[in-house]
Amino acid sequence: MSDVYLALLHWPVLNKDGRVVTTAITCFDLHDIARAALTYGVRRYFLVNPLPSQRKLAERITRYWQSGPSADWNPTRRDAFQIVRVVERLEEVIAAVREEAGEAPRVVVTTARPWPRAVGYEWLRGQMAADEGPWLLLFGTGWGLAEEVKEQADYVLEPVVGPGAYNHLSVRAAVAVILDRLLAPGAPGR
Amino acid sequence: MSDVYLALLHWPVLNKDGRVVTTAITCFDLHDIARAALTYGVRRYFLVNPLPSQRKLAERITRYWQSGPSADWNPTRRDAFQIVRVVERLEEVIAAVREEAGEAPRVVVTTARPWPRAVGYEWLRGQMAADEGPWLLLFGTGWGLAEEVKEQADYVLEPVVGPGAYNHLSVRAAVAVILDRLLAPGAPGR
Repeated sequence: MSDVYLALLHWPVLNKDGRVVTTAITCFDLHDIARAALTYGVRRYFLVNPLPSQRKLAERITRYWQSGPSADWNPTRRDAFQIVRVVERLEEVIAAVREEAGEAPRVVVTTARPWPRAVGYEWLRGQMAADEGPWLLLFGTGWGLAEEVKEQADYVLEPVVGPGAYNHLSVRAAVAVILDRLLAPGAPGR
Repeated sequence: MSDVYLALLHWPVLNKDGRVVTTAITCFDLHDIARAALTYGVRRYFLVNPLPSQRKLAERITRYWQSGPSADWNPTRRDAFQIVRVVERLEEVIAAVREEAGEAPRVVVTTARPWPRAVGYEWLRGQMAADEGPWLLLFGTGWGLAEEVKEQADYVLEPVVGPGAYNHLSVRAAVAVILDRLLAPGAPGR
């Protein structure tokens, strides 16, 4: 199985009006995404936020579940938080993956919007089976990652769409679906 | 496409020690599951809790996003909450589906634990393509649905599993993955 890393970015992301902003951390993004990442064999989940006060909050939550009575009470939560790293910038994520895996990651950006030259799930699953990576999957908060992140990526992955026109999954749900499509064992559609 | 309904049960569910309890509502279960349900074309999302104070909380959140400035500020959230119904018991859900769809639902229970005679995703996807339903997918909170709910169901669906031994998705993530496997357009694994 290939080496997969995941990062959730709080900057540079768009707000509702299409401007580039920094978003606040949603506490459930820590829990739900750490649990999904560990379930699908992701090596590390980077929470990326440029604001020191926000990183402090995330670190406090991470520590809470990793030690003391809370860790004993819920060991599966402790295990999930063990893959979480709180960092300031995307550049740090890429450097950390390069150091850990010994090679620069193939960067895959996810998006809920159509993008020219976006790659499909079956194709990417095949690539990941053939190339052990490291692979780095990027997810955005707010109204999605800024264009510059997509332009610098190796691949942009097609949006997840349902049968109808409504397409507003939470980032927590999108992470789970995308990890399942790319990394679930057996044939897709099992 | 078949008629699909979804219910999230807060009773009868297990706690950490395997006893049957009533759980409290997690606010993100309202938002994330409503958004995923609408994305995948689910007709109605029933939040089931026997405690009046808990139902009042859920109704207040639902109203908040459906009217006034919050509905104008985030119309996609308003749309998601339009399919939410807060009810007391599973029997009410079944009666409501029967009334709306004109027929009793085929009840499918989801679980994170192995179950004898559990059905697979590909098989159920085929059934749902052949029989327009109504279908009712049940999800549990806490440490999962009590045995009695599984025993009374028409089908129990195989757990979602990743490549490793860790298998602790949040119910929000599990709903998203299961809806994607059963209801995403095109061939599975697209």
